[in-house]
Amino acid sequence: MTSQRLIPLAALETLMKSAGIERVSESAKVALKKALEERARKIITRAAVFSQHAGRKTLKGEDIELAAKE
Amino acid sequence: MTSQRLIPLAALETLMKSAGIERVSESAKVALKKALEERARKIITRAAVFSQHAGRKTLKGEDIELAAKE
Repeated sequence: MTSQRLIPLAALETLMKSAGIERVSESAKVALKKALEERARKIITRAAVFSQHAGRKTLKGEDIELAAKE
Repeated sequence: MTSQRLIPLAALETLMKSAGIERVSESAKVALKKALEERARKIITRAAVFSQHAGRKTLKGEDIELAAKE
């Protein structure tokens, strides 16, 4: 699942430009997309455990916030 | 910089559904977007240092890959 349907490369270019990076190769965008999607999957998997632990079937922001702390 | 122009919430919902999460609150999407954008900014800042260290002005995939390792 690394299709453009997920995090769009254009969004990552915007983030890089807003951080003051002037010249960005295509490979940098692809690598950042991959790193963030892997990170997202880790956070989501952990958050799902926390929501179950809290007796809920709906994933909430507090589950994600806890999962993102590490 | 947390506008919809950056990582779109719809992309994060797709990631969550693909991880088997059936019920996702709006707050979970917003929290995941925030966590990923923060992570992206950290990676980009580190990668910029690595590209300068390598004597380049263009950010490459290898800079991002090194910066994402931690």
